[in-house]
Amino acid sequence: MSWQDYQKWEQMIDGTNCPMCQDIHMPENRHSFLVKELAQSYVRLPKNQDPYGLVLVALKRHATELYELESQERDEFFKEVAKVSKAVKELFKPVKLYYGIFGARCPHFHCHIIPHYISDDPYAPLALNQKKVDLKAEEYTEILRNLRALLAD
Amino acid sequence: MSWQDYQKWEQMIDGTNCPMCQDIHMPENRHSFLVKELAQSYVRLPKNQDPYGLVLVALKRHATELYELESQERDEFFKEVAKVSKAVKELFKPVKLYYGIFGARCPHFHCHIIPHYISDDPYAPLALNQKKVDLKAEEYTEILRNLRALLAD
Repeated sequence: MSWQDYQKWEQMIDGTNCPMCQDIHMPENRHSFLVKELAQSYVRLPKNQDPYGLVLVALKRHATELYELESQERDEFFKEVAKVSKAVKELFKPVKLYYGIFGARCPHFHCHIIPHYISDDPYAPLALNQKKVDLKAEEYTEILRNLRALLAD
Repeated sequence: MSWQDYQKWEQMIDGTNCPMCQDIHMPENRHSFLVKELAQSYVRLPKNQDPYGLVLVALKRHATELYELESQERDEFFKEVAKVSKAVKELFKPVKLYYGIFGARCPHFHCHIIPHYISDDPYAPLALNQKKVDLKAEEYTEILRNLRALLAD
């Protein structure tokens, strides 16, 4: 579902029917696990680990564009994205991180931290959600434990 | 050129041979026009207008990952991205903006503000620089004038 169904899209934009508002705080939802709650955001590990090490930082409150955020909210949100990105870099050792705030599937403001590895084609189009890569339960558990340790203050 | 040539990549990462450091401030360079200089960033209009309305906000000083930015620098940078994204929304009227900090071609920290329109396929992979869409000289001039007016304080 996206802007092609414009009536539903409008409800996702204005927050009256936003899927992420409904489940972004949950320890586990259909798409991801909660890594940690921060001041302005929920850090989440997508079950679809394509690419390996993909992590989300989702704004707690509903907003859809960057310019809607209040100053303090914006400052704190990107401080949190910075902190999480450092943890992702340390844990997964990518050659480069991408940071992407998209929203075609759900416009609720959230940042993808996307590791790129030395073996990846740097010129390939960015195609999240085109493949499905599930890990074993114990692999998620291990990543969650490691990320939480790196995010501990 | 990217991380496939690791020696050159390292020089782009450490800033000793960063293409953007060399020309990001110029009124016009090979790839883009300067829209406006802000406190922490140069706002630039890529000549390749695929998608239409694509605008860059490039950090002035050399850095490659979000967690390398100082607090004030990070706060001001995203305040500037927010301001520019509002101008892009007003001028081009996309249905959604994407915000992408990538860096495969050049890891110097810069944010792409990427308009998506109602007629775009929301599920298509994000493929910047796969097509080349040049505008007429007077079209760039018009966009630059409009963006500068919207960014005037």
